[in-house]
Amino acid sequence: MTSLVQAMLAGDRRALSRVITRVENDGPEARSLLAKIYPHTGNTHVVGITGAPGTGKSTLVNSLTQAYRRLEAPPKVGIIAIDPTSPFSGGALLGDRVRMQEMAGDRGVFIRSMATRGSLGGLARATADVALVLDAAGFSRILVETVGVGQAEVDIADMAHTTIVVEAPGLGDEIQAIKAGVLEIADIFAVNKADRDGVNKTVMSLEMMLGTSMLLVSHHGKVMKVAGAGDAPGWKPPIVKTIALRGDGVEELLQTIERHRAYLLQAGMLQQREAERLRHVLLNVIEDDLRQRFFQRVGEQAFRKMVVRLLAREIDPYTAAEMLLQGESRNSR
Amino acid sequence: MTSLVQAMLAGDRRALSRVITRVENDGPEARSLLAKIYPHTGNTHVVGITGAPGTGKSTLVNSLTQAYRRLEAPPKVGIIAIDPTSPFSGGALLGDRVRMQEMAGDRGVFIRSMATRGSLGGLARATADVALVLDAAGFSRILVETVGVGQAEVDIADMAHTTIVVEAPGLGDEIQAIKAGVLEIADIFAVNKADRDGVNKTVMSLEMMLGTSMLLVSHHGKVMKVAGAGDAPGWKPPIVKTIALRGDGVEELLQTIERHRAYLLQAGMLQQREAERLRHVLLNVIEDDLRQRFFQRVGEQAFRKMVVRLLAREIDPYTAAEMLLQGESRNSR
Repeated sequence: MTSLVQAMLAGDRRALSRVITRVENDGPEARSLLAKIYPHTGNTHVVGITGAPGTGKSTLVNSLTQAYRRLEAPPKVGIIAIDPTSPFSGGALLGDRVRMQEMAGDRGVFIRSMATRGSLGGLARATADVALVLDAAGFSRILVETVGVGQAEVDIADMAHTTIVVEAPGLGDEIQAIKAGVLEIADIFAVNKADRDGVNKTVMSLEMMLGTSMLLVSHHGKVMKVAGAGDAPGWKPPIVKTIALRGDGVEELLQTIERHRAYLLQAGMLQQREAERLRHVLLNVIEDDLRQRFFQRVGEQAFRKMVVRLLAREIDPYTAAEMLLQGESRNSR
Repeated sequence: MTSLVQAMLAGDRRALSRVITRVENDGPEARSLLAKIYPHTGNTHVVGITGAPGTGKSTLVNSLTQAYRRLEAPPKVGIIAIDPTSPFSGGALLGDRVRMQEMAGDRGVFIRSMATRGSLGGLARATADVALVLDAAGFSRILVETVGVGQAEVDIADMAHTTIVVEAPGLGDEIQAIKAGVLEIADIFAVNKADRDGVNKTVMSLEMMLGTSMLLVSHHGKVMKVAGAGDAPGWKPPIVKTIALRGDGVEELLQTIERHRAYLLQAGMLQQREAERLRHVLLNVIEDDLRQRFFQRVGEQAFRKMVVRLLAREIDPYTAAEMLLQGESRNSR
């Protein structure tokens, strides 16, 4: 196993693929691999790319990767495409993945798409693990793309040094409304499909929201303070117009990411974001462990029996949880 | 506190509001309230209503509620509107909530909207708790509406007896693609905004997907078996066209929900879904407890110190988790 890690660290792509597969399979072997790999990490910049469906995130990730690879000293770029919706939508997104395979000939690019039936927490942890492997393997830029609206966006922000929220003109009013929720996490906005009608309206409404983001009134009537996008005083999220299909604006987007990284470094915030990232990684591992240990100690059968009692209304869920957890501590070492 | 529960069970609306607020605030008092309430539950039918942004879910929930209330023996209807995206998007969805308040004069309708910064798990648990309260208070139909794509949909299906997936014509290709992921959870499809162009195309593509849902090829090239929508053999998810704003098709949707309930009862599956629901409720409570107990025993400071060591690459996340958990069992009773 050590030789596999050594081969991976030396740049062997097949070893890299195998390590990632083993890490994804989880279990004790994965942990021992990650423990070996971890000291070699800490040299990458993770860029989270998120936004509503239909904004063209995948195409943008493609173009951005190619732009990085055209640099004079091109970094190795890892792409992690997360689809938290369902394993089945994987098929539907086939087109995007096929397009990504166009870059498969470039040995400086590594693409992994991930989908799971499991909890979002499980997916977040698996993504963090794969990012650690790519980091150790010398991929100094990692693009994490997620299809989705909602919690997935927040999870990606927890995991990234720089978060790009992708918008596009003409996606309908309700989708526009969701923007309010992503103001907190965006370090950069990309308005993609900028050749479409309504692009200026989209840019203007973003600018307006950024301007007014300091005070928002919740639907309970409470006035809530927003700390400012990305919690980074001195950084106002730039809005970059792109047409990812043609590559327009993509180099500017790349420069904006690098500017954000330089800003974080200078402001001493890169370290802080890295600590926040690692806090989440650790928390994910611990929560997984706690759940696993619980079921090992209590047993699936005792749990199922309790559900039957719940169904009969013999007991309530809180008392049931208490009883199972008491039983757990009695049986524990 | 007992008198508060008694007042709530007797139909006092103010008592109901107060109980729900206390339950949402969590803590020992909430648990003791829920333990008292639980024996009075088990008499409701929970309908989950989900779908992509822009499909008009809120309007449909409104119309459906009014249709229920127009029945000869109208059930009391509870509405739980979940917005997992962010507390801040609450403001943007204000319009929908205001519209819902139009029904506030009807004492047979109770509306609660929920949003949280916390984990999706936390939101799922809070929603389940509020549903228990409404159940005990005699609301025999509960409509749980969620804005969102992704994990929220799966969570809602875990919580509902009947899951309605709302679609609408002309939402763009990528949104259509996401449908593949919801085939597993839909008991009923509502194609809303059925006066729009492309409605037949939407219905046809749904029918096609339902027809071919038995075999799907993932993007890894693996052929995956789909157990069939809602895991209910003998029930093919009906597709109901609606124009919620005008109330068109809404009574048919209501009848379809009731048909699904009758089907579940007859097939002995209502009990099974109820057990599945309770299993998730119990699991949520246990996971919360495990996390809380961990932090109580280990302490936030020890956790933070470990993050600093992670940052310095002195230790890896797996060893760190192991050490914290070992410390935990040493300090435990």
